[in-house]
Parts: sequence; C-alpha cells; structure tokens
Amino acid sequence: MLYLVGLGLSDETDITIKGLEVVKEASRVYLEAYTSILLVDQSVLESYYGRSIVVADREMVESNSDEILRDAQTEDVAFLVVGDPFGATTHTDLVLRARELSIPVSTVPNASIMSGIGACGLQLYNFGQTVSMVFFTDNWRPASFYDRIKENRSIGLHTLVLLDIKVKEPSLENLARGRMVYEPPRYMTVGQCASQMLEVEEDKKEGVYGPDSLAIGAARVGGKTEKFVAGTLKELCDQDEVLGGPLHSMVLLGRRTHELEHDFVREFAVDKDKWDFVWRAEYGKQQ
Amino acid sequence: MLYLVGLGLSDETDITIKGLEVVKEASRVYLEAYTSILLVDQSVLESYYGRSIVVADREMVESNSDEILRDAQTEDVAFLVVGDPFGATTHTDLVLRARELSIPVSTVPNASIMSGIGACGLQLYNFGQTVSMVFFTDNWRPASFYDRIKENRSIGLHTLVLLDIKVKEPSLENLARGRMVYEPPRYMTVGQCASQMLEVEEDKKEGVYGPDSLAIGAARVGGKTEKFVAGTLKELCDQDEVLGGPLHSMVLLGRRTHELEHDFVREFAVDKDKWDFVWRAEYGKQQ
Repeated sequence: MLYLVGLGLSDETDITIKGLEVVKEASRVYLEAYTSILLVDQSVLESYYGRSIVVADREMVESNSDEILRDAQTEDVAFLVVGDPFGATTHTDLVLRARELSIPVSTVPNASIMSGIGACGLQLYNFGQTVSMVFFTDNWRPASFYDRIKENRSIGLHTLVLLDIKVKEPSLENLARGRMVYEPPRYMTVGQCASQMLEVEEDKKEGVYGPDSLAIGAARVGGKTEKFVAGTLKELCDQDEVLGGPLHSMVLLGRRTHELEHDFVREFAVDKDKWDFVWRAEYGKQQ
Repeated sequence: MLYLVGLGLSDETDITIKGLEVVKEASRVYLEAYTSILLVDQSVLESYYGRSIVVADREMVESNSDEILRDAQTEDVAFLVVGDPFGATTHTDLVLRARELSIPVSTVPNASIMSGIGACGLQLYNFGQTVSMVFFTDNWRPASFYDRIKENRSIGLHTLVLLDIKVKEPSLENLARGRMVYEPPRYMTVGQCASQMLEVEEDKKEGVYGPDSLAIGAARVGGKTEKFVAGTLKELCDQDEVLGGPLHSMVLLGRRTHELEHDFVREFAVDKDKWDFVWRAEYGKQQ
C-alpha cells in the first residue's frame, strides 16, 4: 500500500493519530520537502516518529518515483506531505503511477493552507480560485495570477495567494559550471508579494486592485506563532518584520464580505481607522 | 484559553497529536455536533480520549456561549469541531465573544471537506466559491446556489457543493404542540442533490448546467470507506447505493480542467466511454 500522509502545517505534533500509526509501521518513509516545509527540522520529525526518513526532492518524485513505489504491492510505503496530500500541492502523478503498478493507495488527510487560511476570519465560502506568486527576476515576471484575481474580483470573491519557496535550487552560475551546489533556501514574504502585485497592476492598469485594496498577510498559519496582519496592499509592503519568519501567504479581499468578517479581521489591522474607512467605501457591497 | 480543535473528517484517530493533548488536559470538553458529524459515535470519542464530552447543540452555541466560555480566562476549555474549526462551518461568533471576555483563543487545525475534497483528483486551485444545498420542501426551495454556480462556471471553475444535514431538528408538528421531540437525523445524498440541481435548472433555464454536465459524487471523504463516483448529473441521480452511507458531498466540474484531472477522475466514472465523450466535447477548453 502507498500511504499519502498529510503532516499539517506547523510542527511534529500536527500529524494525526492515524498518520502516526502509518509512519511507525511502514517499511519505508519518504518526506516531500520541496513544495512546502514544516517549521521544524527533519531530525525533530525523525526523533518524534522514531523512524528515519528519506527526503524526496523534486527530481526523485518526478523522475524516480518507481524507487519510492518499489515493492509497495506487498509492503507499506509512507509518503509524507506537508499540509494535505491533495491540497496546495497534489501528487496525482504519483498516484496514477501507483495505479499502473497495481499498488493500492490510501490517503491520510490533514490541514492544508487552503482551508487553514480560514483562521484569518474570512469565510472560506467566499474564496475564489487560488493563485501562486513566484519570485520575479529581471526577465521572468509571470503575471497570469493577475487575470485569475481579476476573475475572482469580478464576482466579489477573496483570493488566496500562495507564495514561492526556493529550496535546494542550484544557482544558475553553478548549473552552468555543472556543479550541484545549492542556493540557500528563500521564502517569499508578504511584503515582496504585495510589491510584485502592485508592480503588475502598474504595468497592466486594468484596475483589478490598487494600493488601497484590502488584504491580509498571514505567517505560520496553524502554528503557535501564527500571525495575521490586515491592511491595504501598500501597508502590507512594509509589515514583514511584524509578520516574522516563514512561511507567509496572503489573501486579497473581494467585495462580497460579511459584517462578522469585518469585526473579526479588524483586530489584525495595521491601522484600524483606515481599515474601517476603506471597508465602508469599497467592501460589503454584495452578499 | 479557549481551544478550537479540529477533529478531521472521519473517526477518532483523525485528531492530531496536538489536538489530543489539548483534549486530555482541558477542564471541559465540548463537541459541536449540529453542522457535521464524524462517522463514529460520541461514546467512541469519549473512550478514546479518556474524557467525557458535552455535546453542544445549535441552541447552546448560539444562545448560551457564555456557559461554554465560563472561566476560560484561567482554565482551558476545548471546543471540538468536525473538520477544521474555520472550514465549512466557522465559529467566528464564538471567537468574537471570547475576545470581548478577554479570553485568549488558540486553534488546532485539521482536515476540512474544503481541502479534503482534493482527493477526488480535481485540483483545488481550480475551485471557485463553495455552495450549500439544503433539503427542498414544498414551499422552500432556495436557489441562491444557482447564481453562485453560474459565476463559477462563467470563469471555468469547479464548485464544491456541501449537502444539508438535519440533526436534532424538532418536527414542525411537534414544535406546534410545544413538544421537544426530534426527527430522526437526515443526511442529503448525492442523488437528492443532483435531482434538486436539475429541477432548478429546469425552472430557471439559464443553461448554467444540464443533465449531461459532469460531476463527482463523494462519500465519507477521508475515511477508510471513502468513495467517489463520477458521471453526468443525470447519472449521479441514481448512484446513492454505490456511494453508500453519509456524509455525501458533490463537485460540479468547470471547463478549466487539466489532462491529469481527466485521467485521475476517469477511474471513478459510472460509464468511462460517456465520461470521455462529454469531457472531450465540453471540458479542458481553457487552461
């Protein structure tokens, strides 16, 4: 059996009882560690689970999945995924390959950022499609997120923005020299995301959002040091110190808001008067 | 401290290690049991947790929350919610009341149907707003879901449809006589949902969807007996026996689909040839 086990969002104690039983009894345990991270190190997990873990990088999962699936027709293999196995990052390709090899698959769900973000106080019912924001470079500034946000906002919906992480990426310079030396990990902040969003709006000028659009910055959702900061996109460009370390994510509000959402989120506002002012002018127009 | 603890989707072993520690040490433990249910009885939870549990019905949570919050400034109170505390059912009002009483609040996230539904093989990125479907009666047939689905489908997105449950509802007859005698619990099936959806389309005739629109029926998501059945809305009117017992939910597909989604979901199709035919004709048009 291939078990896809969600680890939740924060630390070693976020695994479910069911998930922990699978990990303890599996023949081999893999950890997918290139699309998201927990806030604790692999060694903490290993000591808590009482098992050694093979870290599965992108290359292994995408090009060498048969090693992960080896003998899973008769043995139990646990594949651990931060969050939920079918949440922000899905592993449908691994499951399809398992099916081809007649390996049964079982999923142990857990919290995903795509539901955990509800803790910011906005109702998940009012979220549209989720978008991803990647680190812009001088010549790569993908802006497809802009059209998706436009669609969401056209019908009044909130947008969850998931922020890029770069883990175990070879530098271009080292790639050119054929050396596998990796860059230090990088995690996009809410401030970087807000700045890139405003840059793209300045380019495109379609008025999908602007410096005074309301948003919520989220850090370490589901963890003991979870932190939310609410404000305009302009305000959120400068709140990274308040938010603290990774992982960050962001929600851009849609106009279809409920009074309870206002009351709940106001508590997190950088500037409560400004929050109230913009809210009254632009939001809560459509139920 | 008020702890909002997610229980996950299925049975007593879906609680996280962190959540179980909270439950074992809290002064009082409440279970919100009117918006969703686990697939096991209260007595199973109590024996597994080693704690007695007070079942909090709607009246208690909405009108008598101060009893739940009593002394939580100095004691730990655990409020257990099926799924995630901020998922499909939010308890923002309870948190707002706790804030007024200067009670700190901590959340222990868990799987929600709003992320767990990803196990059907559709990418959560491509879901729009979630809608609810209630049991129609002769003179109450709320159809606001129809406009929401129309919005989602206008931009190519999937729609998660959450299905009504009636737990501990007094019958109208008994209400009239002033007796608190409750109806047996009822859980809407995928077949009932599909039928009601088609009825509303027949009334409104806006062509938002039709008998040949593709959908996925889901039963007991996240549980050991999880079951998915994919087909047209017409086909799903008759699949309740295959799906089995509660809880059910449904996804109506949007046209923005990926080839991997096709391959993954096809496995669940009532009629694979028909699935392929409709998919090729109507879906996968927009990436």
